[in-house]
Amino acid sequence: MGTDIRTDVLVVGGGIIGLAVAWRTAQRGLSVTVLDPDPGHGANQVAAGMLAPVTELQYGEEPLLRLGIASNTRYADFVAELTEASGGLSTGYRRCGTLAVALDADDRAELREVHAFQQRLGLTTEWLTGRECRRLEPMLAPDVRGGTLVAEDHQVDGRRLGAALVAACERAGVTLHRSRAATLAVTGDRAAGAVAEDGTRIAAGRTVLAAGSWSGELPGLPPEARLPVRPVKGQVLRLRMETVQGPLPMPFLSRNVRAVVRGCHIYVVPRENGELVLGATSEEQGFDTTVTAGGVYELLRDARELLPGITELPLAETNAGLRPGTPDNAPLLGPTALPDLIAATGHYRNGVLLTPVTGDAIAELLTTGSLPPEAAPFTPERFAAHRPVLETSR
Amino acid sequence: MGTDIRTDVLVVGGGIIGLAVAWRTAQRGLSVTVLDPDPGHGANQVAAGMLAPVTELQYGEEPLLRLGIASNTRYADFVAELTEASGGLSTGYRRCGTLAVALDADDRAELREVHAFQQRLGLTTEWLTGRECRRLEPMLAPDVRGGTLVAEDHQVDGRRLGAALVAACERAGVTLHRSRAATLAVTGDRAAGAVAEDGTRIAAGRTVLAAGSWSGELPGLPPEARLPVRPVKGQVLRLRMETVQGPLPMPFLSRNVRAVVRGCHIYVVPRENGELVLGATSEEQGFDTTVTAGGVYELLRDARELLPGITELPLAETNAGLRPGTPDNAPLLGPTALPDLIAATGHYRNGVLLTPVTGDAIAELLTTGSLPPEAAPFTPERFAAHRPVLETSR
Repeated sequence: MGTDIRTDVLVVGGGIIGLAVAWRTAQRGLSVTVLDPDPGHGANQVAAGMLAPVTELQYGEEPLLRLGIASNTRYADFVAELTEASGGLSTGYRRCGTLAVALDADDRAELREVHAFQQRLGLTTEWLTGRECRRLEPMLAPDVRGGTLVAEDHQVDGRRLGAALVAACERAGVTLHRSRAATLAVTGDRAAGAVAEDGTRIAAGRTVLAAGSWSGELPGLPPEARLPVRPVKGQVLRLRMETVQGPLPMPFLSRNVRAVVRGCHIYVVPRENGELVLGATSEEQGFDTTVTAGGVYELLRDARELLPGITELPLAETNAGLRPGTPDNAPLLGPTALPDLIAATGHYRNGVLLTPVTGDAIAELLTTGSLPPEAAPFTPERFAAHRPVLETSR
Repeated sequence: MGTDIRTDVLVVGGGIIGLAVAWRTAQRGLSVTVLDPDPGHGANQVAAGMLAPVTELQYGEEPLLRLGIASNTRYADFVAELTEASGGLSTGYRRCGTLAVALDADDRAELREVHAFQQRLGLTTEWLTGRECRRLEPMLAPDVRGGTLVAEDHQVDGRRLGAALVAACERAGVTLHRSRAATLAVTGDRAAGAVAEDGTRIAAGRTVLAAGSWSGELPGLPPEARLPVRPVKGQVLRLRMETVQGPLPMPFLSRNVRAVVRGCHIYVVPRENGELVLGATSEEQGFDTTVTAGGVYELLRDARELLPGITELPLAETNAGLRPGTPDNAPLLGPTALPDLIAATGHYRNGVLLTPVTGDAIAELLTTGSLPPEAAPFTPERFAAHRPVLETSR
């Protein structure tokens, strides 16, 4: 094909993951192009931005926990550098801690076990009684039976993070080509860039697939390189907090709070600007982003049990986004079965958290040829055995 | 004062009530000015537009029922004439019937009593078993125990009704002065028009106060003419219906449905364009129109018990409006304590229903000097005894 843009690295998809990869790679001296119709406006637009890997812990997900902690640890430096690189844009970063609470005896037993597991792994969490939880967060329901506190947890505003990454990319010389990828270009059995829907042909030495939930759908992907990514719909509400009046006026909520309510996981993230983000459903509905009566109902029902006072708060926004899910809930980072095509996708519920570590890891792979150790367990390779055997005519 | 506009009749407030009064009065040959910053955009923007006076019946409200039936009876002709007078604008009028259902034994007993009362008054309603209700509306919950059907009930789209009334007024020569009333003008102990916030002075022979929830707030109103109107907040949801698939595809809902769910009254109005209006809360919150987490939660909770399938439907809009409530839930129609000031307000939950009868009654009063019999019980006079005695220096 003829070529309109020639670049060392083409990143297909300009969500926060693609932009972080582009920014970090450009900082290391490679020429980078991002192909996206609206950079900075991926699933981050819906995300709550809670940075809380320890309380996200599930059994059997220890490598993912370590990746999360690696990213979490560098978050403060990452956003400080990003704010400077973007010309002063805030990301809404805030160190506030996370409180995970249990509402009934079953929840409490489960949270106790998770806490014991955290202790065995050497993680710093503190067990609190229900009364201690309410002393920290007085709006919590009287039913709260106990919880764990991770004092050093923090939060970031996914929307402002996206805007700051766009600005930092532009200042670092990244080309933001505002169109959608029509097809991957493959030359001599290697990835060679992409053709955009606007007709632009982009030739690239390496191509990074960072298209979130759409990463398995890119036309031109050979079957053996197709990534096992599927969209998992999440409905999210945004409320507005008012200051609770009283002898000592205080914010409605001060920390990230998460809970299991009758088996449904919910979280509530209070921002300094008064926004209270409440999420999220997890629905296997394909590429549907409809806000439904049932999704909104369930979120409000569960949040009301956790924080009865939310009924008084204004409901400012209802929204839905698509998380890129994978078979093991962990991201796909690194080489694919197609030479020169690199995955940076499948971050599921952890896209905001894993943005710093993903940007660093893929930039390192692109410049040194190898992934850092914390990212090594997450190459798409791990699903190769499950790939259906396809007949081939060659 | 100097005068910028001179008019036979000034209508303060261009919601659907004020516009209907203006249109009907202009048709009778008087010059009419409507003072409103955004005519056609009052509480009608939130209203469901269910026209169902018989199932709205409450004990002790028989005069109001008769007024509602009088308006209901002329609705088809009213909208037909309005569509022609507006140059062909549709009002979304639709004859669909109303089904009032009971969900538990208590609800059923209450609805049975209301049905018996309706029969005694000679009203045509039919009692249906739960099975018969579900035969009419298959999406109703299996818990529905019975109901009453008013087959001739109908509905109109409050937003389109407002737009059609604006167009009809313009075509009938009504002056729409787009500003807010700053103060009522009083000359020699008679109402004499108003001054607008933009400074325009409007001199009028008669002034009609049709300012909805704000009708008691107009500056310049002498205390003895102040109307006992208060805002009653209503939160309303709009969902989108999809066709229910099956051997015979059918609409999600075909009729207006109302129910009492654990003491909370809800209604669901399916429009031909696929909109499903779900309302409404009743809250004494002053002039607050915030959509709250609790309001949305309660509407969805109750609607889900009535129509479990709504959980799948997209939630398209959340909104809140202010109904002008009065001490007896009935409107204020006719002369006030201030000569030449006429009330057309306080329509509470019945503004859309009572628009035709109010337009006709006030136009008749303005041209003949007397109200028609169905409107006579609703003059503000009836609250004169309750007016606080005020000291006066005269």
